[in-house]
Amino acid sequence: MTERVVLAYSGGLDTSVAIPYLAEQTGAEVIAVAIDVGQGGEDLAAIRQRALDCGAAESEVIDAREEFAADYCVPAMRANALYMDRYPLVSALSRPLIVKHLVAAAKRYNGTIVSHGCTGKGNDQVRFEAGLGALAPQLKVIAPARDFAWTRDKAIAYAEEKGLPIDVTHKSPYSIDQNLWGRAVETGFLEDIWNAPIEDVYAYTANPAEQRDPDHVVITFDAGVPVAIDGETVTPYQAIVELNRRAGAQGVGRLDMVEDRLVGIKSREVYEAPGAIALITAHQELENVTVERDVARFKKGVDQRWGELVYDGLWFSPLRNALDAFIDDTQRHVSGEVRLALHGGRATVTGRRSEASLYDFGLATYDTGDTFDQSLAKGFVQLWGLPSKLASARDARLGGSEQ
Amino acid sequence: MTERVVLAYSGGLDTSVAIPYLAEQTGAEVIAVAIDVGQGGEDLAAIRQRALDCGAAESEVIDAREEFAADYCVPAMRANALYMDRYPLVSALSRPLIVKHLVAAAKRYNGTIVSHGCTGKGNDQVRFEAGLGALAPQLKVIAPARDFAWTRDKAIAYAEEKGLPIDVTHKSPYSIDQNLWGRAVETGFLEDIWNAPIEDVYAYTANPAEQRDPDHVVITFDAGVPVAIDGETVTPYQAIVELNRRAGAQGVGRLDMVEDRLVGIKSREVYEAPGAIALITAHQELENVTVERDVARFKKGVDQRWGELVYDGLWFSPLRNALDAFIDDTQRHVSGEVRLALHGGRATVTGRRSEASLYDFGLATYDTGDTFDQSLAKGFVQLWGLPSKLASARDARLGGSEQ
Amino acid sequence: MTERVVLAYSGGLDTSVAIPYLAEQTGAEVIAVAIDVGQGGEDLAAIRQRALDCGAAESEVIDAREEFAADYCVPAMRANALYMDRYPLVSALSRPLIVKHLVAAAKRYNGTIVSHGCTGKGNDQVRFEAGLGALAPQLKVIAPARDFAWTRDKAIAYAEEKGLPIDVTHKSPYSIDQNLWGRAVETGFLEDIWNAPIEDVYAYTANPAEQRDPDHVVITFDAGVPVAIDGETVTPYQAIVELNRRAGAQGVGRLDMVEDRLVGIKSREVYEAPGAIALITAHQELENVTVERDVARFKKGVDQRWGELVYDGLWFSPLRNALDAFIDDTQRHVSGEVRLALHGGRATVTGRRSEASLYDFGLATYDTGDTFDQSLAKGFVQLWGLPSKLASARDARLGGSEQ
Amino acid sequence: MTERVVLAYSGGLDTSVAIPYLAEQTGAEVIAVAIDVGQGGEDLAAIRQRALDCGAAESEVIDAREEFAADYCVPAMRANALYMDRYPLVSALSRPLIVKHLVAAAKRYNGTIVSHGCTGKGNDQVRFEAGLGALAPQLKVIAPARDFAWTRDKAIAYAEEKGLPIDVTHKSPYSIDQNLWGRAVETGFLEDIWNAPIEDVYAYTANPAEQRDPDHVVITFDAGVPVAIDGETVTPYQAIVELNRRAGAQGVGRLDMVEDRLVGIKSREVYEAPGAIALITAHQELENVTVERDVARFKKGVDQRWGELVYDGLWFSPLRNALDAFIDDTQRHVSGEVRLALHGGRATVTGRRSEASLYDFGLATYDTGDTFDQSLAKGFVQLWGLPSKLASARDARLGGSEQ
Repeated sequence: MTERVVLAYSGGLDTSVAIPYLAEQTGAEVIAVAIDVGQGGEDLAAIRQRALDCGAAESEVIDAREEFAADYCVPAMRANALYMDRYPLVSALSRPLIVKHLVAAAKRYNGTIVSHGCTGKGNDQVRFEAGLGALAPQLKVIAPARDFAWTRDKAIAYAEEKGLPIDVTHKSPYSIDQNLWGRAVETGFLEDIWNAPIEDVYAYTANPAEQRDPDHVVITFDAGVPVAIDGETVTPYQAIVELNRRAGAQGVGRLDMVEDRLVGIKSREVYEAPGAIALITAHQELENVTVERDVARFKKGVDQRWGELVYDGLWFSPLRNALDAFIDDTQRHVSGEVRLALHGGRATVTGRRSEASLYDFGLATYDTGDTFDQSLAKGFVQLWGLPSKLASARDARLGGSEQ
Repeated sequence: MTERVVLAYSGGLDTSVAIPYLAEQTGAEVIAVAIDVGQGGEDLAAIRQRALDCGAAESEVIDAREEFAADYCVPAMRANALYMDRYPLVSALSRPLIVKHLVAAAKRYNGTIVSHGCTGKGNDQVRFEAGLGALAPQLKVIAPARDFAWTRDKAIAYAEEKGLPIDVTHKSPYSIDQNLWGRAVETGFLEDIWNAPIEDVYAYTANPAEQRDPDHVVITFDAGVPVAIDGETVTPYQAIVELNRRAGAQGVGRLDMVEDRLVGIKSREVYEAPGAIALITAHQELENVTVERDVARFKKGVDQRWGELVYDGLWFSPLRNALDAFIDDTQRHVSGEVRLALHGGRATVTGRRSEASLYDFGLATYDTGDTFDQSLAKGFVQLWGLPSKLASARDARLGGSEQ
Repeated sequence: MTERVVLAYSGGLDTSVAIPYLAEQTGAEVIAVAIDVGQGGEDLAAIRQRALDCGAAESEVIDAREEFAADYCVPAMRANALYMDRYPLVSALSRPLIVKHLVAAAKRYNGTIVSHGCTGKGNDQVRFEAGLGALAPQLKVIAPARDFAWTRDKAIAYAEEKGLPIDVTHKSPYSIDQNLWGRAVETGFLEDIWNAPIEDVYAYTANPAEQRDPDHVVITFDAGVPVAIDGETVTPYQAIVELNRRAGAQGVGRLDMVEDRLVGIKSREVYEAPGAIALITAHQELENVTVERDVARFKKGVDQRWGELVYDGLWFSPLRNALDAFIDDTQRHVSGEVRLALHGGRATVTGRRSEASLYDFGLATYDTGDTFDQSLAKGFVQLWGLPSKLASARDARLGGSEQ
Repeated sequence: MTERVVLAYSGGLDTSVAIPYLAEQTGAEVIAVAIDVGQGGEDLAAIRQRALDCGAAESEVIDAREEFAADYCVPAMRANALYMDRYPLVSALSRPLIVKHLVAAAKRYNGTIVSHGCTGKGNDQVRFEAGLGALAPQLKVIAPARDFAWTRDKAIAYAEEKGLPIDVTHKSPYSIDQNLWGRAVETGFLEDIWNAPIEDVYAYTANPAEQRDPDHVVITFDAGVPVAIDGETVTPYQAIVELNRRAGAQGVGRLDMVEDRLVGIKSREVYEAPGAIALITAHQELENVTVERDVARFKKGVDQRWGELVYDGLWFSPLRNALDAFIDDTQRHVSGEVRLALHGGRATVTGRRSEASLYDFGLATYDTGDTFDQSLAKGFVQLWGLPSKLASARDARLGGSEQ
């Protein structure tokens, strides 16, 4: 029986060219699998057909949008996952889901090889291959762009030579990855890190500088999951779509940063993630109201590690499981409503309320109704500061103080 | 010789009333000391005179603005200190400086008691008294509002009875603390955490929703210290003043959050910190460019602990010293320029450049000039994912996988 | 109806004297509750009777040994809980269990007050009262030793005056707390921290310096719980008893340290915990074999926080719950056998085996059968070291290197 | 001019064979450099001559023992560096020092290539090459064992063919790396992790089970550096030699563990490190006495990261520098004396004293002289437990408690 390669197919130049090339190189049949993670853009039926036109033995489109929202985006939001305090892990979240479906497809089609379009200097190759190693170590992996040193020019020449049905005349100046959770843009002129992005770079967000009326939205969470928007019940997928639309219309969620890649280099990245930023902002504030202080402080370290781990391609790792167990436990009471003002590129919390609130009006108020016993403070303050006091006295005695 | 009380004097009702009251209660002379930490507002000469008019034996104003900027705000900025990812530690930074000057004044005036106006349910009492315990454990501390259960009504009655020269007719609805680094506002209607702040709450920032032109500013840092604005050399104090003005004019730095106080309760706080937010934003991005990845990741935990420690009143603690030693080491090469767009409430980095940059164009570019050896990636990816791969295989073998 | 005080009763001088004293002070009936946490020593029926003889309205002994082992000691072992890397939390573990039973007794007996014998400078008062605040905030708490400034002499005089049936002639020079998980000793001469403990201090352990034959024991764990000793099935309680006996006979588990108390002071403590040390030693090594590297590294921070939190009296806290959720997840495959040599005060792992082992002989061996592909290493090494390499080159270029 | 290879030469089979082989493969002259890091064993003059006899163009022995002690072992001790809570980083510490001297030698001899004997599945290749990348990225690296897939049999055949002056008849069953700080042993029968080590494995330590008298030693530290043994001034090198001798004679410092290698596999390692374990034990306890609580708690995470970083080959990294800055600051007052009992494989602290002690007898004692104000405790306890109390009440109200 002919061997089969399951290819993660995007419809673009690189993976289209890969179809005949992989067949040539391996003698195998190519199965093209396109995963819908909400990337939008071209019609997926057209993409499916293109793979066949390029010579794929089989071509399949899998709608993974609800799964992506519920099982990947929501956990990221519960972890307030912002790599380097900024980047909400757009591509890093979709890769493990794509891996999962590739593995399932390899099983369905008796594939023994999987293939992806990543280069050798990015993070995504790690996310693909660490995931494949975890889920299906028996599968062989080929990454043409990396393993055969494919370049764009080489791909175009090959496409023309083979007469592949790909429009290679339009060369977008941008290298883009996008999905439900956001959009990542790289491009030549942004590789000079002193250059500012231009408006043309953006697609998910309107210009925040344009004058428009604010949009007030109330997001309801149940145990850390968004369940309603302005009182209307939504699935996680619907919540993200709706907030992408409304926060995007207000220019929320543009990011521009120099970031540390796993492969050891720094790169310049521009992102848009209107829904992600709006949801994480609301979620963080609801945690402020409903999560106890020591948990909140420790969770920051857990959240940071979660983000780094997933950024670093280790979604399918025991540590991610264990961190999620911690996070799940903290989210039991992260229920309630947060009101956001979306306006001028900002998502600002303007109100929060919750049955599970730990904010106690009686203890907090300085007005009538104050129930806080201030006489307790004196003893607390004394013992709280005692270790520093003893150390300062020692330092003063020994002349070692630097303060 | 008569005993002397050194009072941290603000000029307001509570500490004015404290002057005769402390004299009465202790039989001591009261020395009023007002510290200028950039709080603005009333003329300090008038404040100084008021203390005398209320019966202070001596009254002094100390200009600590440059010291506050250089020794308190800049270290906070180098630590990217944002308590709960939001609050830049406005009041928490000024308290230790005030303590330091109170202790010096107690020495100058032979004071044996110090006094401050804090209540027993806030953080500031801890910051004062932990600081005093560290610097001058021999001094006795009196906090009338807490120790004698002073209330505003009681203070007004007392002021009228004693004929103190204080205008008690104007009752501001807001409880405010402000200094160079920002401004904190609490008030009755904000104690309902579903209520949004109104425009009237703000003083350091213009309404971000108003239409105006963006302001582009270039901040130059040298070893983590801001040294120039748009090419013009500045002291840290001048840098903060200038950025408060320019970022404030664009509505940057408004914050509204529920926060965890050290005394164990949650409170609702509204802050404005235009200069602080602009500087921290720029500093973080310059770190992204100049600080090595492992340092950056570990520093996040150091920064978090620094912020919590200072928030919790432990400025004068050996741990703050040791964290600062770590941070100092990391800042040696945080030098260069960051361009910010200040607009519509946002401070957005649009460019960064540095002689000390670790961003390597040759390694990062996907265009001509790429020097990254992609053939190294395959081995890296395999070994990077090996522990997870072995664990997944084990889990699959034992049927224990949850993935 | 007469009010009722539920007293945590130990049978010793302090809590015996408390019975009539509490009755006197409060006018309430005293209910004495003694909790058996494996402290051994005096017969519990005698203790129960003594309370009645001292005037208790009711007296009850509760056997909580299996519960203590399974729900308190085992979680501590799974967290490898060693406060300051040494102390296995002997007293810190029993306090929350005692609190739980006191609260249940208060419910049964309609008690409105609870009372305990702790002083005001130790950790145990915090553990009692933080626990009571969490489980039963409506109960009033009285701690006679702290709240009425009880001293031993005062207690003796009171006992003699009231003719209480307590032998006050024998004054042990030691202050002791002991239970299934270990034994804590404080005493006057050990308060000079240069003094070494003498043999007389110890009760759970034989002198490790005495010559005897080693004892080899195999402990079987299932998901992080000890389930068999030398192949014989045991409950957690039986496992600890057996290892206390066998490790204690070899002098294992003596500890002598200066430790940081929650109330801000350092104290000198001597402990014995033969079973705890043997179990934690075995458990750690089984984790080395069965837990993936990134999990193991992160778990160290979780374990440390767990130990500090429980030491600090916050057993009944949301953070302990969330940390346990993390730990539970990590323990799923901590199953297998560890062989320990118990000898001369040492518990030394000499072998480990597990169906869930991540140790892969083929990858590890340098002999025939090596399956590790060494060609992968070159790429790994290059990219692993790349960030440091870039930073070093930058430092060299700028002359800023200190290396 | 002929190219030159600088070879890290040990005198053993692998690096001896490498001399002619490298010359053959590269056409370069081989410069053999042996670094004395206290590994003992064979005379270094003989080793130097052997290199020449094998065809080295130059051969040099460098005495780096004092440098190794002061600049590598002491920092490790100050970090209480025990990888996975056990392994004091024996080999991991010597590699960066050897790298430093290789780079210096390459400069002296105009070498353009360096070579080391590490395999492709261990940690040491990473330590060598990450170090070389940091210090001298321009040097080419050859690791014959890894890059040419050298095996022992191949090496022996080659040695015989070339008539190299190496005794290949005696095949030690052990693979050993040793230096001043300890000794690492791997061997075939220990690759079965259920097998216990046999006495024959050990060389630095006597059998702890043999009866002998205890040895009491007093170590004096100044700012975290050992400066005297039993009152006699020593250099760090002398301190380690002396403690290796005395602790080794008592069987202290044997370790047997399964450890996580950087390259992603678990391996079984047996170590001996009598001096290291004695010093770290004493140092930790002196920290307990002289380091403030919050510093001590945070330092555990710093220490852990230090150990992992150095284990992982990143000695020459900015993070190690920054962690050392933190640690240096914490060690200012780690001065005083610790008395250890060395006996039966145990190094037990029996006394500690320090001018810089934070142990305060007056606060700690329960006898006459107690200066602790117990009345402060009540307020402390109440506010300390308040967040958990509020959370528990919330959980109870919502029925969400699991406790």
